[in-house]
Amino acid sequence: MKDYYSQSIELHKKHGGKIATATKVPLETRDDLSIAYSPGVAAVCKEIAQDSQKAKELTIKKNTIAIVSDGSAILGIGNLGAKAAIPVMEGKAALLKAFADVDAFPICLDTQDPEEIIETVKRIAPVFGGINLEDIAAPQCFEIEERLKKELDIPVMHDDQHGTAIVTLAGLINALKLRNSQKEDVKIVVNGAGSAGVAITKMLLTFGLKNVLVSDSKGAIYEGRKTLSGEKEKLATMTNLACRIDIDDPRCAIGGLEKIIQGADVFIGVSKGGLLTKEMVQSMAKDPIIFALANPEPEIMPDDAKEAGAFVVATGRSDFPNQINNVLAFPGLFRGVLDAGAKSFTEEMFVLVAESIASHVEKPRRDKVVPDALDKTVAQVVAEAVKKVCKTK
Amino acid sequence: MKDYYSQSIELHKKHGGKIATATKVPLETRDDLSIAYSPGVAAVCKEIAQDSQKAKELTIKKNTIAIVSDGSAILGIGNLGAKAAIPVMEGKAALLKAFADVDAFPICLDTQDPEEIIETVKRIAPVFGGINLEDIAAPQCFEIEERLKKELDIPVMHDDQHGTAIVTLAGLINALKLRNSQKEDVKIVVNGAGSAGVAITKMLLTFGLKNVLVSDSKGAIYEGRKTLSGEKEKLATMTNLACRIDIDDPRCAIGGLEKIIQGADVFIGVSKGGLLTKEMVQSMAKDPIIFALANPEPEIMPDDAKEAGAFVVATGRSDFPNQINNVLAFPGLFRGVLDAGAKSFTEEMFVLVAESIASHVEKPRRDKVVPDALDKTVAQVVAEAVKKVCKTK
Repeated sequence: MKDYYSQSIELHKKHGGKIATATKVPLETRDDLSIAYSPGVAAVCKEIAQDSQKAKELTIKKNTIAIVSDGSAILGIGNLGAKAAIPVMEGKAALLKAFADVDAFPICLDTQDPEEIIETVKRIAPVFGGINLEDIAAPQCFEIEERLKKELDIPVMHDDQHGTAIVTLAGLINALKLRNSQKEDVKIVVNGAGSAGVAITKMLLTFGLKNVLVSDSKGAIYEGRKTLSGEKEKLATMTNLACRIDIDDPRCAIGGLEKIIQGADVFIGVSKGGLLTKEMVQSMAKDPIIFALANPEPEIMPDDAKEAGAFVVATGRSDFPNQINNVLAFPGLFRGVLDAGAKSFTEEMFVLVAESIASHVEKPRRDKVVPDALDKTVAQVVAEAVKKVCKTK
Repeated sequence: MKDYYSQSIELHKKHGGKIATATKVPLETRDDLSIAYSPGVAAVCKEIAQDSQKAKELTIKKNTIAIVSDGSAILGIGNLGAKAAIPVMEGKAALLKAFADVDAFPICLDTQDPEEIIETVKRIAPVFGGINLEDIAAPQCFEIEERLKKELDIPVMHDDQHGTAIVTLAGLINALKLRNSQKEDVKIVVNGAGSAGVAITKMLLTFGLKNVLVSDSKGAIYEGRKTLSGEKEKLATMTNLACRIDIDDPRCAIGGLEKIIQGADVFIGVSKGGLLTKEMVQSMAKDPIIFALANPEPEIMPDDAKEAGAFVVATGRSDFPNQINNVLAFPGLFRGVLDAGAKSFTEEMFVLVAESIASHVEKPRRDKVVPDALDKTVAQVVAEAVKKVCKTK
């Protein structure tokens, strides 16, 4: 990985960042200028002033989104602030262009106050056809996304939540199929209750999985546990349901990961490197499915997981099979909503997109439960799924 | 002009706006992704987190500016709001790219409150290497620019003020030369005290012109006139100086344009179409210089001005000679400050840029006092002038 680091710095130094502006119209002659700019452009301004919806047709709003970060949770590194977030947001913009021909621009905010973030995004929204929130720390990310969804008339999505959740569900759909498991029967442990863990859990429930446990650094989340707040409090009402009925019920999961993982069919880690041991895997049901998504060090290394009996192993890394990579989702998601003129993303849309990504793997195998991250046809498949949902609305 | 209007709407409809994102790095292979994005990019983020100045070297901040408008004074049309401003800001971005290879992105704000504008621009500043304020109405534009210049560490410029002022001064320098006038001797009337009028007046004074009068819709501005505030109050202390000494001095100009223009050598109109009559031109000094810059209808049509004896006539229009077009200034200005790593624009810089634009006209003639708006070499000349000023600091 060391090599990627120095090569990346070289690349950024050489090009001065990764994206640029391109002009789509000729600007060579006097007529070109008069048509693209003054005086001709006045007519375009007036059309939009009369009917603001025309901005979606006559301006870059048609194909442009903002990638907004406050730099509070950059990759797996942490809170590095606005300027240090730029390279990630540029990368995202470059991928949106390369994979789905979406024009995206990085907005890195010099504030980490949720109210100020909401206010600022609303003020700069006119030119954008969508908002991709990125690398904003939990729990603020939940309120910021929820409020912006309500208060803006363009689609807003926090990719660290939903992009990850969609691709995870896609992989899980194929893994469960290979294992001949019915979604009603499987017991799943989601380890980590940050932005990704919360979104994954909700999507699993929307998809129809019943027996879902979530644990954070203090162990299983259950209704009545002290020190729960915000989204975790909500999770306690949706997961670990036995505890809601009777806290003494043997199915009520209380305790650390090593305890609650016993007998589970699926482990999904969005937590910290190295915290799933071989012994824990061995304590799971036969042929367990392991999604060890912590980056760059997974909760358990794939070889160890397999030695301990894992049936399918997925990670976030490109150097192992089954990479759970957001790039399979976000470019097509934005392509889809921009093409459909949709005003918002929905949970239903996300589930259908996960299913379409899963189906795109022609012959799923234990080491191929998701498409290759570089497969640019996936974005089209995702966009089509989004547009289908929008049409039937 | 009708034709430009419909052609402009067609062009915007066809392309969906005028600018797009382009990627500067390859994204085809697994290695490409690992270098441009995760995991390699983490090293770049960490470098910037340690030294925020590195953002100017490793990210698009190096070559990217924001074009910020609240849509309150779009072209000559008026207050049409944020969305209707987008086509103009896109045009500006396209010109910055085509003329000076500057990457620019339109930010159209859903607020017209000066404090909120200042606050928002500061919050989104991290990714930008400069701020071009655009089509923001007077008098708010003055405070917004002044505050942002103070509170940000990147160059900020309101182009409707300084772009126009620079190109006007450039043209005037050549016109005065052709007329064999010494700058100490000429009497100038600036008609219009909005954003352009104020900036032009200040630049004329910085350049060394002494006898400058400014008039607004209520007539000449002089110290002691009622209903003066803000920038106009300041103008009253810098212009029409005879009134400051003795309001009964015959050189103290009080009254409407038809009165104060008598005997003037130069008229600069940044006001309203048609309000300079042939009779007024005839009442000026011999061989008067007329800059009738109102758009699209000038204060006087060039043919009428010439018939009345004008020596040089300039307008804002591309269909007459001597077009005073900001595009001669702003692309090179931003190219210059980005290349020099300058933290601000200065009045001194603007005057030197005006002189360099004037000198770029090899053989000035009465119908050629400024370079052609399409002459892309001007941006280089301007950028060099800016860099020279920065070096000698």
